[in-house]
Amino acid sequence: MLPTQHTWFSEFYQPEGVALAWTIESHLAHEVTDYQTIDIYKTTHWGHLMVIDGCVMLTSRDNFIYHEMLTHPALFSHPNPKTVLIIGGGDCGTLKEVLAHPGVVKVTQVEIDEKVTRLSERFFPELCERNQDPRAQLLFDDGLAHIQALEPESVDVIIVDSTDPIGPAEGLFGPAFIKDCHAALSHEGVLVQQSESPLLHLPLIEGIRANMRAAGFSQCETLGFPQPCYPSGWWSATVASKGGPLQPPTEARFNDAQLATRYYNPAVHAGALGTQLGLIER
Amino acid sequence: MLPTQHTWFSEFYQPEGVALAWTIESHLAHEVTDYQTIDIYKTTHWGHLMVIDGCVMLTSRDNFIYHEMLTHPALFSHPNPKTVLIIGGGDCGTLKEVLAHPGVVKVTQVEIDEKVTRLSERFFPELCERNQDPRAQLLFDDGLAHIQALEPESVDVIIVDSTDPIGPAEGLFGPAFIKDCHAALSHEGVLVQQSESPLLHLPLIEGIRANMRAAGFSQCETLGFPQPCYPSGWWSATVASKGGPLQPPTEARFNDAQLATRYYNPAVHAGALGTQLGLIER
Repeated sequence: MLPTQHTWFSEFYQPEGVALAWTIESHLAHEVTDYQTIDIYKTTHWGHLMVIDGCVMLTSRDNFIYHEMLTHPALFSHPNPKTVLIIGGGDCGTLKEVLAHPGVVKVTQVEIDEKVTRLSERFFPELCERNQDPRAQLLFDDGLAHIQALEPESVDVIIVDSTDPIGPAEGLFGPAFIKDCHAALSHEGVLVQQSESPLLHLPLIEGIRANMRAAGFSQCETLGFPQPCYPSGWWSATVASKGGPLQPPTEARFNDAQLATRYYNPAVHAGALGTQLGLIER
Repeated sequence: MLPTQHTWFSEFYQPEGVALAWTIESHLAHEVTDYQTIDIYKTTHWGHLMVIDGCVMLTSRDNFIYHEMLTHPALFSHPNPKTVLIIGGGDCGTLKEVLAHPGVVKVTQVEIDEKVTRLSERFFPELCERNQDPRAQLLFDDGLAHIQALEPESVDVIIVDSTDPIGPAEGLFGPAFIKDCHAALSHEGVLVQQSESPLLHLPLIEGIRANMRAAGFSQCETLGFPQPCYPSGWWSATVASKGGPLQPPTEARFNDAQLATRYYNPAVHAGALGTQLGLIER
Protein backbone atom coordinates (compact mmCIF):
# COMPACT_ATOMS: atom_id res chain seq x y z
CA MET A 1 0.00 0.00 0.00
CA LEU A 2 1.11 3.57 -0.56
CA PRO A 3 1.92 5.79 2.42
CA THR A 4 -1.24 7.26 3.88
CA GLN A 5 0.27 10.59 4.88
CA HIS A 6 0.00 11.63 1.22
CA THR A 7 -2.94 12.12 -1.11
CA TRP A 8 -2.45 10.01 -4.21
CA PHE A 9 -3.78 9.65 -7.67
CA SER A 10 -3.17 6.03 -8.73
CA GLU A 11 -3.78 4.40 -12.08
CA PHE A 12 -3.96 0.65 -11.65
CA TYR A 13 -3.39 -1.04 -14.99
CA GLN A 14 -5.13 -4.26 -14.07
CA PRO A 15 -4.47 -6.36 -17.22
CA GLU A 16 -0.73 -6.24 -16.49
CA GLY A 17 -0.71 -6.01 -12.67
CA VAL A 18 1.09 -2.70 -12.43
CA ALA A 19 0.22 0.74 -11.05
CA LEU A 20 1.61 4.23 -11.26
CA ALA A 21 0.83 6.89 -8.69
CA TRP A 22 1.58 10.54 -8.05
CA THR A 23 1.35 12.59 -4.90
CA ILE A 24 -1.32 15.24 -5.29
CA GLU A 25 -1.70 18.70 -3.82
CA SER A 26 -5.21 19.39 -5.05
CA HIS A 27 -8.02 18.24 -7.34
CA LEU A 28 -8.48 21.16 -9.71
CA ALA A 29 -11.32 20.05 -11.98
CA HIS A 30 -13.84 17.25 -12.45
CA GLU A 31 -16.01 17.29 -15.56
CA VAL A 32 -18.49 14.70 -16.77
CA THR A 33 -19.04 15.23 -20.50
CA ASP A 34 -21.17 13.38 -23.05
CA TYR A 35 -18.14 11.20 -23.80
CA GLN A 36 -16.09 10.71 -20.65
CA THR A 37 -15.05 11.93 -17.23
CA ILE A 38 -12.10 14.32 -17.08
CA ASP A 39 -10.12 15.17 -13.95
CA ILE A 40 -7.26 17.61 -13.46
CA TYR A 41 -4.95 17.34 -10.46
CA LYS A 42 -2.09 19.47 -9.22
CA THR A 43 0.78 17.12 -8.38
CA THR A 44 3.67 17.81 -6.03
CA HIS A 45 6.43 17.26 -8.63
CA TRP A 46 4.94 16.70 -12.10
CA GLY A 47 2.92 19.88 -12.62
CA HIS A 48 -0.67 19.31 -13.72
CA LEU A 49 -2.06 15.86 -14.43
CA MET A 50 -5.00 15.17 -16.77
CA VAL A 51 -6.95 11.94 -16.26
CA ILE A 52 -9.74 10.65 -18.52
CA ASP A 53 -11.95 7.84 -17.25
CA GLY A 54 -9.29 6.99 -14.66
CA CYS A 55 -6.43 6.74 -17.22
CA VAL A 56 -3.56 9.22 -17.16
CA MET A 57 -3.45 11.33 -20.34
CA LEU A 58 -0.55 13.67 -19.61
CA THR A 59 1.46 15.55 -17.04
CA SER A 60 3.10 18.95 -17.50
CA ARG A 61 6.52 17.45 -16.87
CA ASP A 62 6.83 14.60 -19.34
CA ASN A 63 4.30 15.16 -22.18
CA PHE A 64 7.00 16.64 -24.43
CA ILE A 65 8.33 13.20 -25.33
CA TYR A 66 4.97 11.83 -26.49
CA HIS A 67 3.99 14.93 -28.46
CA GLU A 68 7.36 15.19 -30.20
CA MET A 69 7.46 11.50 -31.07
CA LEU A 70 3.90 11.43 -32.39
CA THR A 71 4.54 14.45 -34.63
CA HIS A 72 8.07 14.78 -35.97
CA PRO A 73 8.81 11.26 -37.27
CA ALA A 74 5.55 11.39 -39.27
CA LEU A 75 6.09 14.88 -40.68
CA PHE A 76 9.71 14.14 -41.61
CA SER A 77 8.59 10.88 -43.28
CA HIS A 78 6.70 12.98 -45.85
CA PRO A 79 8.85 14.88 -48.38
CA ASN A 80 6.97 18.17 -47.97
CA PRO A 81 3.92 18.07 -45.69
CA LYS A 82 1.58 21.03 -46.17
CA THR A 83 -1.78 19.78 -44.87
CA VAL A 84 -2.06 17.89 -41.60
CA LEU A 85 -5.09 16.36 -39.88
CA ILE A 86 -5.06 15.48 -36.18
CA ILE A 87 -7.73 13.08 -34.92
CA GLY A 88 -8.13 13.50 -31.16
CA GLY A 89 -5.28 15.48 -29.65
CA GLY A 90 -7.60 17.73 -27.63
CA ASP A 91 -4.85 18.83 -25.24
CA CYS A 92 -3.26 20.58 -28.28
CA GLY A 93 0.30 19.41 -27.54
CA THR A 94 0.49 17.61 -30.89
CA LEU A 95 -1.00 20.63 -32.68
CA LYS A 96 1.71 22.82 -31.17
CA GLU A 97 4.45 20.50 -32.49
CA VAL A 98 2.88 20.34 -35.98
CA LEU A 99 2.68 24.13 -36.15
CA ALA A 100 6.40 24.33 -35.37
CA HIS A 101 7.04 23.05 -38.93
CA PRO A 102 7.31 26.17 -41.10
CA GLY A 103 6.24 24.35 -44.30
CA VAL A 104 2.84 23.33 -42.93
CA VAL A 105 0.08 25.55 -44.33
CA LYS A 106 -3.03 24.02 -42.71
CA VAL A 107 -3.66 21.86 -39.64
CA THR A 108 -7.13 20.63 -38.80
CA GLN A 109 -7.71 19.08 -35.40
CA VAL A 110 -10.84 17.00 -34.88
CA GLU A 111 -11.39 16.34 -31.19
CA ILE A 112 -14.68 14.77 -30.17
CA ASP A 113 -14.80 16.37 -26.71
CA GLU A 114 -14.46 20.16 -26.61
CA LYS A 115 -14.06 20.05 -22.84
CA VAL A 116 -10.62 18.42 -23.20
CA THR A 117 -9.39 21.46 -25.11
CA ARG A 118 -11.05 23.97 -22.77
CA LEU A 119 -9.42 22.31 -19.76
CA SER A 120 -6.07 22.18 -21.52
CA GLU A 121 -6.26 25.89 -22.33
CA ARG A 122 -6.73 26.49 -18.61
CA PHE A 123 -4.31 23.98 -17.07
CA PHE A 124 -1.77 23.31 -19.87
CA PRO A 125 -1.56 26.77 -21.49
CA GLU A 126 1.98 26.04 -22.73
CA LEU A 127 0.50 23.37 -25.05
CA CYS A 128 -2.15 25.73 -26.40
CA GLU A 129 0.06 28.72 -27.12
CA ARG A 130 -0.22 28.24 -30.91
CA ASN A 131 -3.98 27.58 -31.01
CA GLN A 132 -4.56 31.06 -32.50
CA ASP A 133 -2.13 30.41 -35.37
CA PRO A 134 -4.08 31.22 -38.58
CA ARG A 135 -2.99 27.86 -40.02
CA ALA A 136 -4.86 26.00 -37.25
CA GLN A 137 -8.49 24.93 -37.39
CA LEU A 138 -9.95 23.39 -34.23
CA LEU A 139 -13.08 21.31 -34.83
CA PHE A 140 -15.05 19.48 -32.17
CA ASP A 141 -16.53 16.58 -34.01
CA ASP A 142 -16.41 12.84 -34.59
CA GLY A 143 -13.08 11.88 -36.19
CA LEU A 144 -14.51 8.79 -37.89
CA ALA A 145 -17.19 10.80 -39.68
CA HIS A 146 -14.77 13.62 -40.51
CA ILE A 147 -12.36 11.26 -42.29
CA GLN A 148 -15.18 9.63 -44.26
CA ALA A 149 -16.33 13.03 -45.57
CA LEU A 150 -12.88 14.12 -46.78
CA GLU A 151 -11.97 14.49 -50.44
CA PRO A 152 -9.76 11.56 -51.54
CA GLU A 153 -6.02 12.29 -51.49
CA SER A 154 -6.53 15.67 -49.81
CA VAL A 155 -4.29 15.43 -46.72
CA ASP A 156 -0.51 14.92 -46.48
CA VAL A 157 -0.24 13.64 -42.90
CA ILE A 158 -2.86 12.19 -40.52
CA ILE A 159 -1.98 11.93 -36.81
CA VAL A 160 -4.19 9.74 -34.65
CA ASP A 161 -3.61 11.10 -31.14
CA SER A 162 -6.25 9.13 -29.30
CA THR A 163 -7.00 7.75 -25.86
CA ASP A 164 -6.72 4.00 -25.25
CA PRO A 165 -8.72 1.65 -27.52
CA ILE A 166 -11.72 1.50 -25.20
CA GLY A 167 -14.55 4.04 -24.97
CA PRO A 168 -14.83 6.84 -27.55
CA ALA A 169 -11.51 5.98 -29.25
CA GLU A 170 -12.30 2.32 -29.95
CA GLY A 171 -13.25 2.89 -33.60
CA LEU A 172 -9.93 4.62 -34.24
CA PHE A 173 -8.20 1.25 -33.81
CA GLY A 174 -10.42 -0.58 -36.33
CA PRO A 175 -9.59 -1.52 -39.94
CA ALA A 176 -12.37 0.59 -41.53
CA PHE A 177 -10.98 3.83 -40.08
CA ILE A 178 -7.44 3.05 -41.24
CA LYS A 179 -8.78 2.34 -44.75
CA ASP A 180 -10.55 5.72 -44.70
CA CYS A 181 -7.28 7.38 -43.66
CA HIS A 182 -5.49 5.71 -46.57
CA ALA A 183 -8.10 7.05 -48.99
CA ALA A 184 -7.88 10.59 -47.57
CA LEU A 185 -4.08 10.72 -47.79
CA SER A 186 -2.30 12.26 -50.76
CA HIS A 187 0.10 10.39 -53.02
CA GLU A 188 3.05 10.33 -50.58
CA GLY A 189 0.83 10.57 -47.51
CA VAL A 190 1.83 9.43 -44.03
CA LEU A 191 -0.33 8.12 -41.18
CA VAL A 192 0.80 7.88 -37.56
CA GLN A 193 -1.14 6.37 -34.70
CA GLN A 194 -0.26 6.24 -31.01
CA SER A 195 0.12 2.51 -30.46
CA GLU A 196 0.46 1.85 -26.71
CA SER A 197 3.31 -0.02 -24.96
CA PRO A 198 5.80 -2.29 -26.76
CA LEU A 199 6.16 -4.27 -23.53
CA LEU A 200 2.48 -4.61 -22.61
CA HIS A 201 0.47 -4.36 -25.83
CA LEU A 202 2.26 -6.27 -28.58
CA PRO A 203 -0.94 -7.93 -29.89
CA LEU A 204 -2.59 -4.52 -30.21
CA ILE A 205 0.45 -3.15 -32.06
CA GLU A 206 0.39 -6.15 -34.38
CA GLY A 207 -3.29 -5.42 -35.04
CA ILE A 208 -2.56 -1.79 -35.91
CA ARG A 209 0.20 -2.89 -38.28
CA ALA A 210 -2.06 -5.48 -39.89
CA ASN A 211 -4.75 -2.81 -40.39
CA MET A 212 -2.20 -0.55 -42.07
CA ARG A 213 -0.92 -3.25 -44.40
CA ALA A 214 -4.49 -4.32 -45.25
CA ALA A 215 -5.39 -0.71 -46.07
CA GLY A 216 -2.62 -0.60 -48.67
CA PHE A 217 0.19 1.31 -46.96
CA SER A 218 3.50 0.26 -48.46
CA GLN A 219 5.67 0.87 -45.37
CA CYS A 220 4.98 0.52 -41.67
CA GLU A 221 7.28 1.05 -38.66
CA THR A 222 6.69 1.12 -34.91
CA LEU A 223 8.86 3.61 -33.03
CA GLY A 224 9.45 3.12 -29.30
CA PHE A 225 10.17 5.88 -26.79
CA PRO A 226 10.08 6.37 -23.02
CA GLN A 227 6.84 7.88 -21.71
CA PRO A 228 7.02 8.08 -17.91
CA CYS A 229 3.32 8.67 -17.18
CA TYR A 230 1.95 5.70 -19.14
CA PRO A 231 1.87 2.05 -18.00
CA SER A 232 5.38 0.53 -18.29
CA GLY A 233 6.93 3.93 -19.08
CA TRP A 234 7.64 2.69 -22.61
CA TRP A 235 5.32 3.75 -25.40
CA SER A 236 5.13 3.70 -29.21
CA ALA A 237 3.89 5.39 -32.35
CA THR A 238 3.26 3.38 -35.51
CA VAL A 239 3.95 5.25 -38.76
CA ALA A 240 2.77 4.14 -42.20
CA SER A 241 3.55 5.56 -45.60
CA LYS A 242 1.75 5.42 -48.94
CA GLY A 243 4.91 6.32 -50.78
CA GLY A 244 8.57 6.29 -49.95
CA PRO A 245 10.60 4.66 -47.20
CA LEU A 246 10.32 5.75 -43.56
CA GLN A 247 13.58 7.45 -42.71
CA PRO A 248 14.80 10.17 -40.37
CA PRO A 249 15.40 13.56 -41.97
CA THR A 250 18.85 14.66 -43.04
CA GLU A 251 20.58 16.96 -40.55
CA ALA A 252 20.09 19.77 -43.07
CA ARG A 253 16.31 19.30 -43.26
CA PHE A 254 16.05 18.97 -39.49
CA ASN A 255 18.12 22.10 -38.92
CA ASP A 256 16.13 24.06 -41.51
CA ALA A 257 12.92 23.39 -39.56
CA GLN A 258 14.48 25.03 -36.45
CA LEU A 259 12.39 22.95 -34.04
CA ALA A 260 13.01 23.50 -30.33
CA THR A 261 12.66 19.80 -29.48
CA ARG A 262 13.81 18.41 -26.15
CA TYR A 263 13.67 14.68 -27.00
CA TYR A 264 13.36 14.32 -30.77
CA ASN A 265 16.27 14.64 -33.18
CA PRO A 266 17.29 12.63 -36.28
CA ALA A 267 19.50 10.25 -34.24
CA VAL A 268 16.66 9.55 -31.80
CA HIS A 269 14.35 9.04 -34.79
CA ALA A 270 16.74 6.47 -36.30
CA GLY A 271 17.05 4.72 -32.93
CA ALA A 272 13.28 4.55 -32.49
CA LEU A 273 13.03 2.95 -35.95
CA GLY A 274 15.33 0.23 -34.56
CA THR A 275 12.69 -0.96 -32.04
CA GLN A 276 12.70 -4.78 -32.35
CA LEU A 277 9.07 -5.63 -31.70
CA GLY A 278 9.16 -9.33 -32.42
CA LEU A 279 11.85 -9.97 -29.84
CA ILE A 280 10.40 -8.17 -26.84
CA GLU A 281 8.23 -10.98 -25.43
CA ARG A 282 10.07 -14.26 -25.21
CA MET B 1 -4.93 4.53 -2.84
CA LEU B 2 -4.44 1.22 -4.59
CA PRO B 3 -7.25 -1.35 -4.64
CA THR B 4 -7.27 -3.34 -1.42
CA GLN B 5 -8.41 -6.61 -2.99
CA HIS B 6 -4.81 -7.08 -4.20
CA THR B 7 -1.51 -7.51 -2.39
CA TRP B 8 0.94 -4.90 -3.63
CA PHE B 9 4.59 -4.17 -3.55
CA SER B 10 4.96 -0.39 -3.93
CA GLU B 11 8.09 1.68 -4.31
CA PHE B 12 7.38 5.28 -3.41
CA TYR B 13 10.06 7.52 -4.85
CA GLN B 14 9.52 10.36 -2.41
CA PRO B 15 11.96 12.98 -3.84
CA GLU B 16 9.89 13.13 -7.03
CA GLY B 17 6.40 12.33 -5.73
CA VAL B 18 5.85 9.21 -7.82
CA ALA B 19 5.28 5.55 -7.05
CA LEU B 20 5.32 2.28 -8.97
CA ALA B 21 3.52 -0.80 -7.74
CA TRP B 22 3.04 -4.41 -8.80
CA THR B 23 0.42 -6.94 -7.77
CA ILE B 24 2.06 -9.75 -5.83
CA GLU B 25 1.21 -13.42 -5.51
CA SER B 26 3.71 -14.28 -2.80
CA HIS B 27 6.75 -13.10 -0.87
CA LEU B 28 9.42 -15.65 -1.72
CA ALA B 29 12.46 -14.51 0.25
CA HIS B 30 13.52 -11.95 2.84
CA GLU B 31 17.22 -11.74 3.74
CA VAL B 32 18.99 -9.28 5.98
CA THR B 33 22.69 -9.29 5.08
CA ASP B 34 25.65 -7.30 6.42
CA TYR B 35 24.98 -4.72 3.70
CA GLN B 36 21.27 -4.50 2.99
CA THR B 37 17.85 -6.12 3.08
CA ILE B 38 16.87 -8.18 0.04
CA ASP B 39 13.32 -9.28 -0.80
CA ILE B 40 12.06 -11.45 -3.64
CA TYR B 41 8.40 -11.40 -4.67
CA LYS B 42 6.41 -13.39 -7.19
CA THR B 43 4.32 -10.91 -9.18
CA THR B 44 1.16 -11.66 -11.12
CA HIS B 45 2.46 -10.41 -14.50
CA TRP B 46 6.15 -9.47 -14.26
CA GLY B 47 7.72 -12.73 -13.08
CA HIS B 48 10.00 -12.39 -10.07
CA LEU B 49 10.83 -9.04 -8.51
CA MET B 50 14.01 -8.32 -6.52
CA VAL B 51 13.93 -5.43 -4.05
CA ILE B 52 16.92 -4.12 -2.08
CA ASP B 53 16.29 -1.78 0.86
CA GLY B 54 12.83 -1.06 -0.56
CA CYS B 55 14.08 -0.13 -4.05
CA VAL B 56 13.21 -2.27 -7.07
CA MET B 57 16.32 -3.82 -8.63
CA LEU B 58 14.81 -5.92 -11.41
CA THR B 59 11.89 -7.95 -12.64
CA SER B 60 12.06 -11.05 -14.84
CA ARG B 61 10.05 -9.31 -17.54
CA ASP B 62 11.91 -6.10 -18.26
CA ASN B 63 15.52 -6.48 -17.02
CA PHE B 64 16.73 -7.28 -20.54
CA ILE B 65 16.72 -3.64 -21.55
CA TYR B 66 18.89 -2.47 -18.66
CA HIS B 67 21.39 -5.30 -18.94
CA GLU B 68 21.77 -4.95 -22.71
CA MET B 69 22.16 -1.17 -22.54
CA LEU B 70 24.69 -1.28 -19.71
CA THR B 71 26.82 -3.84 -21.57
CA HIS B 72 26.78 -3.58 -25.35
CA PRO B 73 27.34 0.16 -25.94
CA ALA B 74 30.41 -0.01 -23.68
CA LEU B 75 31.87 -3.16 -25.22
CA PHE B 76 31.31 -1.92 -28.77
CA SER B 77 32.93 1.42 -27.84
CA HIS B 78 36.21 -0.45 -27.33
CA PRO B 79 37.94 -1.69 -30.51
CA ASN B 80 38.59 -5.19 -29.14
CA PRO B 81 37.65 -5.76 -25.50
CA LYS B 82 39.27 -8.85 -23.96
CA THR B 83 39.20 -8.17 -20.21
CA VAL B 84 36.08 -6.85 -18.49
CA LEU B 85 35.48 -5.93 -14.85
CA ILE B 86 31.95 -5.64 -13.43
CA ILE B 87 31.55 -3.76 -10.14
CA GLY B 88 28.28 -4.78 -8.49
CA GLY B 89 26.02 -6.65 -10.89
CA GLY B 90 25.25 -9.44 -8.41
CA ASP B 91 22.14 -10.59 -10.25
CA CYS B 92 24.53 -11.67 -13.07
CA GLY B 93 22.40 -10.25 -15.91
CA THR B 94 25.23 -7.95 -17.00
CA LEU B 95 27.74 -10.80 -16.72
CA LYS B 96 25.58 -12.89 -19.04
CA GLU B 97 25.53 -10.13 -21.66
CA VAL B 98 29.31 -9.59 -21.44
CA LEU B 99 29.93 -13.32 -21.90
CA ALA B 100 27.85 -13.24 -25.08
CA HIS B 101 30.76 -11.37 -26.74
CA PRO B 102 32.99 -14.06 -28.24
CA GLY B 103 36.14 -11.90 -28.11
CA VAL B 104 36.04 -11.47 -24.33
CA VAL B 105 38.61 -13.73 -22.62
CA LYS B 106 38.11 -12.80 -18.97
CA VAL B 107 35.29 -11.23 -16.95
CA THR B 108 35.68 -10.51 -13.25
CA GLN B 109 32.60 -9.57 -11.27
CA VAL B 110 33.08 -7.95 -7.87
CA GLU B 111 29.81 -7.93 -5.95
CA ILE B 112 29.94 -6.89 -2.31
CA ASP B 113 26.97 -9.01 -1.23
CA GLU B 114 27.14 -12.71 -2.08
CA LYS B 115 23.49 -13.13 -1.10
CA VAL B 116 22.37 -11.11 -4.14
CA THR B 117 23.98 -13.68 -6.43
CA ARG B 118 22.71 -16.68 -4.45
CA LEU B 119 19.15 -15.34 -4.62
CA SER B 120 19.51 -14.58 -8.33
CA GLU B 121 20.71 -18.14 -9.01
CA ARG B 122 17.52 -19.33 -7.35
CA PHE B 123 14.93 -16.84 -8.64
CA PHE B 124 16.49 -15.48 -11.87
CA PRO B 125 18.27 -18.62 -13.18
CA GLU B 126 18.02 -17.32 -16.77
CA LEU B 127 20.43 -14.51 -15.82
CA CYS B 128 22.92 -16.92 -14.22
CA GLU B 129 23.07 -19.49 -16.99
CA ARG B 130 26.60 -18.45 -18.00
CA ASN B 131 28.04 -18.20 -14.47
CA GLN B 132 29.98 -21.44 -15.01
CA ASP B 133 31.67 -20.10 -18.17
CA PRO B 134 35.43 -20.63 -17.63
CA ARG B 135 36.01 -16.98 -18.63
CA ALA B 136 33.96 -15.78 -15.64
CA GLN B 137 35.35 -15.10 -12.18
CA LEU B 138 32.81 -14.24 -9.46
CA LEU B 139 34.31 -12.44 -6.45
CA PHE B 140 32.40 -11.25 -3.41
CA ASP B 141 34.36 -8.28 -2.25
CA ASP B 142 34.45 -4.49 -2.01
CA GLY B 143 34.59 -2.95 -5.48
CA LEU B 144 36.37 0.20 -4.30
CA ALA B 145 39.24 -1.79 -2.76
CA HIS B 146 39.37 -4.16 -5.74
CA ILE B 147 39.87 -1.33 -8.23
CA GLN B 148 42.59 0.28 -6.07
CA ALA B 149 44.57 -2.96 -6.00
CA LEU B 150 44.50 -3.51 -9.79
CA GLU B 151 47.60 -3.19 -11.98
CA PRO B 152 47.46 0.08 -13.96
CA GLU B 153 46.10 -0.25 -17.50
CA SER B 154 45.10 -3.89 -16.97
CA VAL B 155 41.37 -3.88 -17.90
CA ASP B 156 39.69 -3.02 -21.20
CA VAL B 157 36.15 -2.29 -19.98
CA ILE B 158 34.78 -1.49 -16.50
CA ILE B 159 31.02 -1.73 -15.95
CA VAL B 160 29.61 -0.14 -12.80
CA ASP B 161 26.31 -1.95 -12.29
CA SER B 162 25.40 -0.59 -8.90
CA THR B 163 22.37 0.16 -6.77
CA ASP B 164 21.33 3.78 -6.22
CA PRO B 165 23.91 6.23 -4.83
CA ILE B 166 22.87 5.70 -1.23
CA GLY B 167 23.99 2.89 1.09
CA PRO B 168 26.76 0.49 -0.01
CA ALA B 169 27.00 1.95 -3.54
CA GLU B 170 27.57 5.57 -2.49
CA GLY B 171 31.35 5.47 -3.00
CA LEU B 172 30.87 4.22 -6.58
CA PHE B 173 29.47 7.64 -7.50
CA GLY B 174 32.42 9.60 -6.06
CA PRO B 175 35.35 11.18 -7.96
CA ALA B 176 38.06 9.04 -6.30
CA PHE B 177 36.54 5.78 -7.57
CA ILE B 178 36.22 7.10 -11.12
CA LYS B 179 39.88 8.20 -11.01
CA ASP B 180 40.84 4.68 -9.89
CA CYS B 181 38.83 3.25 -12.80
CA HIS B 182 40.67 5.52 -15.21
CA ALA B 183 44.04 4.30 -13.88
CA ALA B 184 43.01 0.62 -14.14
CA LEU B 185 41.80 0.93 -17.74
CA SER B 186 44.02 0.06 -20.67
CA HIS B 187 45.02 2.51 -23.39
CA GLU B 188 41.66 2.50 -25.23
CA GLY B 189 39.68 1.57 -22.12
CA VAL B 190 35.98 2.25 -21.64
CA LEU B 191 34.03 2.86 -18.44
CA VAL B 192 30.24 2.67 -18.16
CA GLN B 193 28.17 3.50 -15.11
CA GLN B 194 24.43 3.16 -14.58
CA SER B 195 23.39 6.78 -14.16
CA GLU B 196 19.75 6.89 -13.04
CA SER B 197 16.88 8.75 -14.75
CA PRO B 198 17.36 11.53 -17.33
CA LEU B 199 14.04 13.00 -16.21
CA LEU B 200 14.53 12.81 -12.43
CA HIS B 201 18.28 12.85 -11.76
CA LEU B 202 19.95 15.33 -14.10
CA PRO B 203 22.18 16.82 -11.37
CA LEU B 204 23.45 13.34 -10.48
CA ILE B 205 24.16 12.61 -14.16
CA GLU B 206 26.01 15.92 -14.47
CA GLY B 207 28.07 14.91 -11.42
CA ILE B 208 28.99 11.56 -12.97
CA ARG B 209 30.03 13.30 -16.18
CA ALA B 210 32.09 15.86 -14.26
CA ASN B 211 33.83 13.03 -12.38
CA MET B 212 34.65 11.32 -15.68
CA ARG B 213 36.03 14.48 -17.26
CA ALA B 214 38.05 15.28 -14.10
CA ALA B 215 39.52 11.76 -14.13
CA GLY B 216 40.89 12.35 -17.62
CA PHE B 217 38.44 10.51 -19.90
CA SER B 218 38.49 12.12 -23.33
CA GLN B 219 34.90 11.28 -24.33
CA CYS B 220 31.70 10.97 -22.31
CA GLU B 221 28.13 10.24 -23.45
CA THR B 222 24.88 9.52 -21.58
CA LEU B 223 22.61 7.01 -23.30
CA GLY B 224 18.90 6.99 -22.44
CA PHE B 225 16.60 3.96 -22.63
CA PRO B 226 13.21 2.89 -21.28
CA GLN B 227 13.38 0.85 -18.08
CA PRO B 228 9.84 0.10 -16.91
CA CYS B 229 10.61 -0.99 -13.32
CA TYR B 230 12.62 2.10 -12.30
CA PRO B 231 11.21 5.49 -11.26
CA SER B 232 10.01 7.41 -14.36
CA GLY B 233 10.50 4.35 -16.60
CA TRP B 234 13.37 6.18 -18.32
CA TRP B 235 16.92 5.35 -17.34
CA SER B 236 20.49 5.95 -18.52
CA ALA B 237 24.03 4.63 -18.75
CA THR B 238 26.97 7.03 -18.99
CA VAL B 239 29.90 5.77 -21.06
CA ALA B 240 33.41 7.27 -21.02
CA SER B 241 36.40 6.47 -23.18
CA LYS B 242 40.13 6.95 -22.69
CA GLY B 243 40.75 6.69 -26.40
CA GLY B 244 38.60 6.96 -29.48
CA PRO B 245 35.13 8.36 -30.11
CA LEU B 246 32.01 6.70 -28.72
CA GLN B 247 30.17 5.24 -31.69
CA PRO B 248 27.84 2.35 -32.42
CA PRO B 249 29.43 -0.69 -34.06
CA THR B 250 29.26 -1.24 -37.78
CA GLU B 251 26.55 -3.68 -38.85
CA ALA B 252 29.35 -6.11 -39.73
CA ARG B 253 30.90 -6.01 -36.26
CA PHE B 254 27.48 -6.30 -34.62
CA ASN B 255 26.51 -9.25 -36.81
CA ASP B 256 29.84 -11.00 -36.18
CA ALA B 257 29.17 -10.95 -32.43
CA GLN B 258 25.90 -12.88 -33.02
CA LEU B 259 24.23 -11.45 -29.92
CA ALA B 260 20.64 -12.49 -29.24
CA THR B 261 19.60 -9.03 -28.05
CA ARG B 262 15.97 -8.04 -27.70
CA TYR B 263 16.42 -4.26 -27.30
CA TYR B 264 19.97 -3.37 -28.31
CA ASN B 265 21.14 -3.01 -31.90
CA PRO B 266 23.38 -0.46 -33.63
CA ALA B 267 20.44 1.81 -34.57
CA VAL B 268 19.18 1.80 -30.98
CA HIS B 269 22.75 2.53 -29.82
CA ALA B 270 22.97 5.54 -32.17
CA GLY B 271 19.57 6.76 -30.99
CA ALA B 272 20.56 6.47 -27.33
CA LEU B 273 23.67 8.55 -28.09
CA GLY B 274 21.26 11.26 -29.29
CA THR B 275 19.79 11.75 -25.77
CA GLN B 276 19.67 15.56 -25.30
CA LEU B 277 20.33 15.90 -21.58
CA GLY B 278 20.58 19.68 -21.34
CA LEU B 279 17.13 20.19 -22.82
CA ILE B 280 15.09 17.81 -20.70
CA GLU B 281 14.31 20.11 -17.75
CA ARG B 282 13.04 23.48 -18.87
